[in-house]
Amino acid sequence: MRDSGREIDELRKINMETNFTVHPEGSVLISVGNTKVICNASIEERVPPFLRGKGKGWITAEYAMLPRATETRNIRESSKGKVSGRTMEIQRLIGRSLRAVVDLDKLGERTIWVDCDVIQADGGTRTASITGAFVAVVLALGQLVDKETIKELPIKDYLAATSVGITPDGTEILDLQYSEDSIAHVDMNIVMTGSNEFVEIQGTGEEATFSMKQLQKLLELAENGMNQIFALQKDVIGKWADSIGEKEAE
Amino acid sequence: MRDSGREIDELRKINMETNFTVHPEGSVLISVGNTKVICNASIEERVPPFLRGKGKGWITAEYAMLPRATETRNIRESSKGKVSGRTMEIQRLIGRSLRAVVDLDKLGERTIWVDCDVIQADGGTRTASITGAFVAVVLALGQLVDKETIKELPIKDYLAATSVGITPDGTEILDLQYSEDSIAHVDMNIVMTGSNEFVEIQGTGEEATFSMKQLQKLLELAENGMNQIFALQKDVIGKWADSIGEKEAE
Amino acid sequence: MRDSGREIDELRKINMETNFTVHPEGSVLISVGNTKVICNASIEERVPPFLRGKGKGWITAEYAMLPRATETRNIRESSKGKVSGRTMEIQRLIGRSLRAVVDLDKLGERTIWVDCDVIQADGGTRTASITGAFVAVVLALGQLVDKETIKELPIKDYLAATSVGITPDGTEILDLQYSEDSIAHVDMNIVMTGSNEFVEIQGTGEEATFSMKQLQKLLELAENGMNQIFALQKDVIGKWADSIGEKEAE
Amino acid sequence: MRDSGREIDELRKINMETNFTVHPEGSVLISVGNTKVICNASIEERVPPFLRGKGKGWITAEYAMLPRATETRNIRESSKGKVSGRTMEIQRLIGRSLRAVVDLDKLGERTIWVDCDVIQADGGTRTASITGAFVAVVLALGQLVDKETIKELPIKDYLAATSVGITPDGTEILDLQYSEDSIAHVDMNIVMTGSNEFVEIQGTGEEATFSMKQLQKLLELAENGMNQIFALQKDVIGKWADSIGEKEAE
Amino acid sequence: MRDSGREIDELRKINMETNFTVHPEGSVLISVGNTKVICNASIEERVPPFLRGKGKGWITAEYAMLPRATETRNIRESSKGKVSGRTMEIQRLIGRSLRAVVDLDKLGERTIWVDCDVIQADGGTRTASITGAFVAVVLALGQLVDKETIKELPIKDYLAATSVGITPDGTEILDLQYSEDSIAHVDMNIVMTGSNEFVEIQGTGEEATFSMKQLQKLLELAENGMNQIFALQKDVIGKWADSIGEKEAE
Amino acid sequence: MRDSGREIDELRKINMETNFTVHPEGSVLISVGNTKVICNASIEERVPPFLRGKGKGWITAEYAMLPRATETRNIRESSKGKVSGRTMEIQRLIGRSLRAVVDLDKLGERTIWVDCDVIQADGGTRTASITGAFVAVVLALGQLVDKETIKELPIKDYLAATSVGITPDGTEILDLQYSEDSIAHVDMNIVMTGSNEFVEIQGTGEEATFSMKQLQKLLELAENGMNQIFALQKDVIGKWADSIGEKEAE
Repeated sequence: MRDSGREIDELRKINMETNFTVHPEGSVLISVGNTKVICNASIEERVPPFLRGKGKGWITAEYAMLPRATETRNIRESSKGKVSGRTMEIQRLIGRSLRAVVDLDKLGERTIWVDCDVIQADGGTRTASITGAFVAVVLALGQLVDKETIKELPIKDYLAATSVGITPDGTEILDLQYSEDSIAHVDMNIVMTGSNEFVEIQGTGEEATFSMKQLQKLLELAENGMNQIFALQKDVIGKWADSIGEKEAE
Repeated sequence: MRDSGREIDELRKINMETNFTVHPEGSVLISVGNTKVICNASIEERVPPFLRGKGKGWITAEYAMLPRATETRNIRESSKGKVSGRTMEIQRLIGRSLRAVVDLDKLGERTIWVDCDVIQADGGTRTASITGAFVAVVLALGQLVDKETIKELPIKDYLAATSVGITPDGTEILDLQYSEDSIAHVDMNIVMTGSNEFVEIQGTGEEATFSMKQLQKLLELAENGMNQIFALQKDVIGKWADSIGEKEAE
Repeated sequence: MRDSGREIDELRKINMETNFTVHPEGSVLISVGNTKVICNASIEERVPPFLRGKGKGWITAEYAMLPRATETRNIRESSKGKVSGRTMEIQRLIGRSLRAVVDLDKLGERTIWVDCDVIQADGGTRTASITGAFVAVVLALGQLVDKETIKELPIKDYLAATSVGITPDGTEILDLQYSEDSIAHVDMNIVMTGSNEFVEIQGTGEEATFSMKQLQKLLELAENGMNQIFALQKDVIGKWADSIGEKEAE
Repeated sequence: MRDSGREIDELRKINMETNFTVHPEGSVLISVGNTKVICNASIEERVPPFLRGKGKGWITAEYAMLPRATETRNIRESSKGKVSGRTMEIQRLIGRSLRAVVDLDKLGERTIWVDCDVIQADGGTRTASITGAFVAVVLALGQLVDKETIKELPIKDYLAATSVGITPDGTEILDLQYSEDSIAHVDMNIVMTGSNEFVEIQGTGEEATFSMKQLQKLLELAENGMNQIFALQKDVIGKWADSIGEKEAE
Repeated sequence: MRDSGREIDELRKINMETNFTVHPEGSVLISVGNTKVICNASIEERVPPFLRGKGKGWITAEYAMLPRATETRNIRESSKGKVSGRTMEIQRLIGRSLRAVVDLDKLGERTIWVDCDVIQADGGTRTASITGAFVAVVLALGQLVDKETIKELPIKDYLAATSVGITPDGTEILDLQYSEDSIAHVDMNIVMTGSNEFVEIQGTGEEATFSMKQLQKLLELAENGMNQIFALQKDVIGKWADSIGEKEAE
Repeated sequence: MRDSGREIDELRKINMETNFTVHPEGSVLISVGNTKVICNASIEERVPPFLRGKGKGWITAEYAMLPRATETRNIRESSKGKVSGRTMEIQRLIGRSLRAVVDLDKLGERTIWVDCDVIQADGGTRTASITGAFVAVVLALGQLVDKETIKELPIKDYLAATSVGITPDGTEILDLQYSEDSIAHVDMNIVMTGSNEFVEIQGTGEEATFSMKQLQKLLELAENGMNQIFALQKDVIGKWADSIGEKEAE
C-alpha cells in the first residue's frame, strides 16, 4: 500500500459537476482527489485563418492555475507577461488530445475553445483537465445538437487521461498525487480513447531511466484506471452517452 | 420596481463560502447574485523592498477573470502578454481599500497577497471582490493569531463595497447587475468601513453627468446597502467578529 | 494659511499658452503653479473598429511624464516596455471626462487623440491635464469649424478638473501641490462641467477614511475653485467661448 | 520500401563533425540526412539560484532554427519577442534527456549550456539535436578532465534519440524525414541510453490513435536504430568512448 | 539659394534656453529652426554594474519624441511596448558622443543621465539633441563644481553636431530641415569637438552613393557650421566657458 | 607589422562557400579569418504595405549571432524577448547598403529577405555580413533570371564592406580582428560600390577623436582593401559577374 493509503492500482475519488458556471456552452468542475479544475468549453462560429473556407472545425485549449492553487503562491502569468513553457506544453497536449476524438469535418467551420483553470492542485492537473474537458466538449456540442445547429454529436470515441509512475523504491503506481509525483523517478501521462487506443504517451525519467518491462507494467496500470474513468464519464454525460462511438460502425 | 424584480434599494442575495480551497491561509467564494469570485489571501513572511526594515506590513491585490466568466469569451491576459488598464485599476483599488482597515504596523513585516479571481460575472465584480477579500484577510490573519504569530487581529474596522448608479430614466438604484450596469448613465462604486466612513468613492458619468442632489441620494442608498453587508460578514467571520473594531476604543 | 502661503480655498496661479507647438490641430501648454503639461489634440479622420459605420466619433487620451519631470528621475515607460497602472488610470480618466462634454454624434466619424505630456510635475498633473486638454480640444475642433469640415462646435459644456484633500491635521484644502499631496490623508480629484454637474469623483483615503460631512466640505471647495478655472478657460478660448453650451437650449 | 528509397527500418546517413566552431568547449555539426544542427556545449562555472551551495551541477538547453532552415522562411523568435510553445517543448526535452545520463553530483557546481541551432531542417531536428548534443557535452566535459578540473568523465551512459512513426497506410517506419513526418498518422520521439533504457517516450496521434501492438513495433524499430547511432557516437568520441558507462559497475 | 531661402552653407537660427525646467541638474530647451528639443541632464551617484569600483563615471542617453512632434501623429513607444531601432541608434550616438569629451575618470563614480525629448520636429533632431545635451551636461557638472563635489569641470572640449547632405540635383548643403532631408540623396551627421576633431561621422546614401570629392565638400560645410555653433554654446554656458579645454595643455 | 602578423594594409583570408544550405534561393557561408557568417537570401512574392501597388521591390535584412559565436556565451535575443540596439543598427545598415545597389524598380513587387547569422565571431561581423549578403542576393536574383521570372539581373554595381581603425599607438590599419577592434581608439566601417563610390561611412571614436588627415588615410586603406574583395566576389559569382554594372552604360 502507498503512503496515501491507496493500492498501487487505485485511482483517487473522481467527481464531475456539470453546468458549474452559467455562461459557457459546456462547463464542468472536475475533482480528482484534491485536484480541482474548472473545464469550460466555448463555441465560436469561426475558425482560425489557416482553416477558413475548408468546411472543417478546430479545437484549441488554454490552461492556467490560480496563483494559490498550490501550496505556495505562484506569480500570475499575466503579471510576468508571458506564458511558461510548462503551460504551453500542457495546453498543446489538451488541444491535440481532444482533436483526436472530435470529428472536425462534422463539426463544421467553428472553433471550440477549451479553458482549463486549476483552482486547487494536488498532482495530475493536466490529466484531470483532459478528462474534464472531454465532458465539457460533449455538453457544448450536445447544445448544438439540441438547437439543431448540427445533426449529430461529432464525437468519435470517449477520451480520458491519467498518470502512472515509478516510485523511488521501484514500484509502478497509478494516478500520482503531488506527494508521490514530486519524488517519482519516472512520470508518465497517458491519454486514451474508450476503445483503449493510445492518443498520447509522454513518459519521462528526470535523472532516471526505465526498461521495456517497466513500461509494459505502467501501460497496464493506465489501461485499467482509464476504463474506470470512462464509466464515470458515461454517467455524467447522461443522454449523450449512447451517441458516442456509434459512428464507428460506419 | 426594476426589470430585475428588485426594489431600487434592494441588494442581490449574497453568500460567502469560507475555506473554499485548501491551500490559502484565507479562502472565500463570494456570490452576489450571479457574480462569483474566489477570494484567496496568502501570507508571505517578507515585505516589498520599499518597506524593508520598517517593521511594517503590506497588502497587495491581484484581480482576474476566467476567460468564460462572461457572456462571450475574453482573451486571457497572460496570452495577450499584458494586464489591461481596467484590471490594473481594479487591483489597485482592492489593495488600497484593504490597507485602510488593516493596521499595517501591527501586521509586522509580512505581505498579504489577495487574489480575486472572478469565475462568473454579472456586474459588480470589483465590489464583490472587496467584500469577499475582507473576509479572506480576516481568516488569514485569524490563523496567525491562532498560531500565536501575532497577538491580536490587526484589523481596525469592517470593510465592504457596493455599487450604485442612475438608470437612463433617472432613477437611483443599489447594486447593479450587468443588464443594469451596461446601460446606466452614472456608475458609482463605494467602499466603506463598518463605522460608515468612506474609504473610496469612484463615480463616473460616461457621456453623462450628475448633480449634487443625485450624488446625495446615491450615497444614502449605498450606506443602507452596506450596513446589510456588514451584518453578513459578521456572521461569516464567526469567532473573530468581536475582535474587530475594539481597538477603536484605544 | 498653508505652508505654501496659500489660503485653504486658494488655487495656484494657472496659465494656458495656446499654439505651443506648430503641428497639432490644438496645442496648449498649461501651468498650474510649478506643474506644466503640454496638451496636444490631434484629429484623425477615422474611428476605432468598434465604432466604424455608426456615424459617431471618439476621443482617446494618452498621458506621460518626461523622466525628469519629477524631483528624482523616473525610468521611461518605453524602456520598461509597459505602461504602468497609474498611467493607464490617468489616461482612461482624461478620455472619459472629455467624452462627457463632446457631442460624439456631431463630431462625426473622426477620432480626437489627446496627448498630455508632463514636462514638470508638482502635484495635480492629471487635473491640469484635463483642464488643458479641454482647451486643446476646443481649438482643434474650432479648426474643423473654420475649415467648414463641421458646421458648429460639437461641445456641450465647459470641462475642468481640480483636486481637494484633507491634511494630516484634518483641514480640507483646495488644489494640492506635491508637498501637500504626498502627506494628505485623503485625496480627491473632481471633474466638473461649466454647469457644475459632476463628471467624475475619485476620492481615496490611503490608510485613512473620511466622513459624509468632510465629503460635503471637499465638494464645496472644489466647486468654488472650478468656477475660477472656467473663467480662465473662457478667456483663453476667445472667439469659441460663446459657442459652448448654447446647444443646451435645444 | 518507402518513397524516400529507404527500408522501413533504415536510418538516414548520419555524420558528426566535431570542433565545428572554435569558441565552445564542445562543438558538433550533426547531419541526419538533410537535417543539420550545430550543437554547442558551453561550461559556466556557476549554477542557477535553486542549486547554489548544493555541490551539484546543472544542464540547460536552448534550441532555435535559422529563419531559412526550412522550405519557406519563418519569422525569427527574437523579432516576435517570444519563444514559441514548440521551441520551449523541445529545449525542455533536450535538457531533461541530457540530465538523465550526466552525473550532476560529479559535475560539481557548474552549468552546461547546450545550444542546438538548426541550420537546415528536413524532419527530426529535435532528435538530431539530442544525439549531437550528447557528443558536444562529452567533448566539453572531456576538456575539463584534460585540464584536471574534474577527475573523470561524469557521464553514466550513452544517449541518443530518433523518431518512429506510422504512415497513412499503417506501416511503422524509422527516422522520418519531413515528407514522411508531415503526413504521418502517429509520430513518436524516443530518447534512449546505451543500455537500451528509455529516458523519454513522446508518442502523439494528431487526429489519430494507435494500439498497444503498434506501439510495440514502433519501440522495436527505435531500439534497433538507436544501437546503430550509439556505434557512430563511439567512433566520434574517440578517446572518451571507454570512459562512459564503466561507472555502471559501481 | 535653397527652397528654404537659406544659402547652401547657412545654419538655421539656433536658440538655447537654459534652466528650462526646475528639477534637473542641467536643463536646456534647444531650438534649431522649428526643431525643438528639451535636453535634461540628471546626476546619479552610482554607476552601472560593469563600472562599479573602478573610480570612473558613465554617461547614458535616452531620446524620444512626443507623439505629435511631427506633422502626423506617431504611436508612443511605451504603447508599442518597445523602443524602435531608430530611437536606439540615436540614443547610442548621443551617449557615445558625450563620452568622447567628458573625462570619465575625473567624473568619479557617478552616472549622467541625458534625456533628449523632442517636442517639435523639423529635421536634425539627433544633432540638435547632441548640441543641446552638451550644454545641459556642462550645467549639471557646473553644479557639482559649485557644490564642491568635484574640483573642476571634467570636460575636455566643446561638442556639437550638425547634418550635411546632397540634394537631388547634386548640391551639398548644410543643416537640412525636414523638407530637404526627406528628399536628400545623401544624408550625413557629423559630431565634432571644439578643436575640429571628428567624434563621429555617419554618412548614408539611401538608394544612392557619393564620391570622395563630394565627401570632402560635405566635411568642409560641416566644419564651418560647427564653428558657429561652438560660439553660441560659449555664450550660453557663461562662466563655465573658460574652464573647458584648458586641460588640453596638460 | 601587427600583433596578428598582418601588414597594416592586409586583409584576412576571405572565403565564400555558395549553396551552403539547400532551401534558400541564395546561400553563402562567408569566412573572413575566423569570422564566419551564414548569409541567406529568400525571395518573397510580395512587398511590405507601404510599397504595395507601386511596382517596386524591397530588401530587408536580419542579423543575429549564435549564443556561443563569441568567446563567452551571450544570452539569446529570443530569450530576452527583444532585439538589442546593436543588432537593430546592424540589420538596418545591411538592408540600406543592399538597397543602394539593387534596382528596386526592376526587382518588381517582391521582397528579398536577407538573413545574416554569425556562427563564429572574431571582429568585423557586420562588414562580412554585407560582403556575403551581396553574393547571396546575386545568386537569389540569378535564380529568378534563370527561371525567366525577371529578364535581367537588377543589380547596378558590386557591393562590399570592410573596417578600418586607429590603434592605441596611432597607426591606421585595415580589417580589424577582435583583438585589435576591442582596443582601437577609432573604428570605422565603410560600405562601397565596385565603382569606389561610398554607400555608407560610419566612423566612431569611443572616448577618442580623429583628425581630417587620419580620416583620409583610413579611407585610402579601405578603398584598397575593397578592390581585393570585389575581385573575390567576381570569382564566386561566376556566370553572373558580367551582368553586373553593364546597365551603368544605359
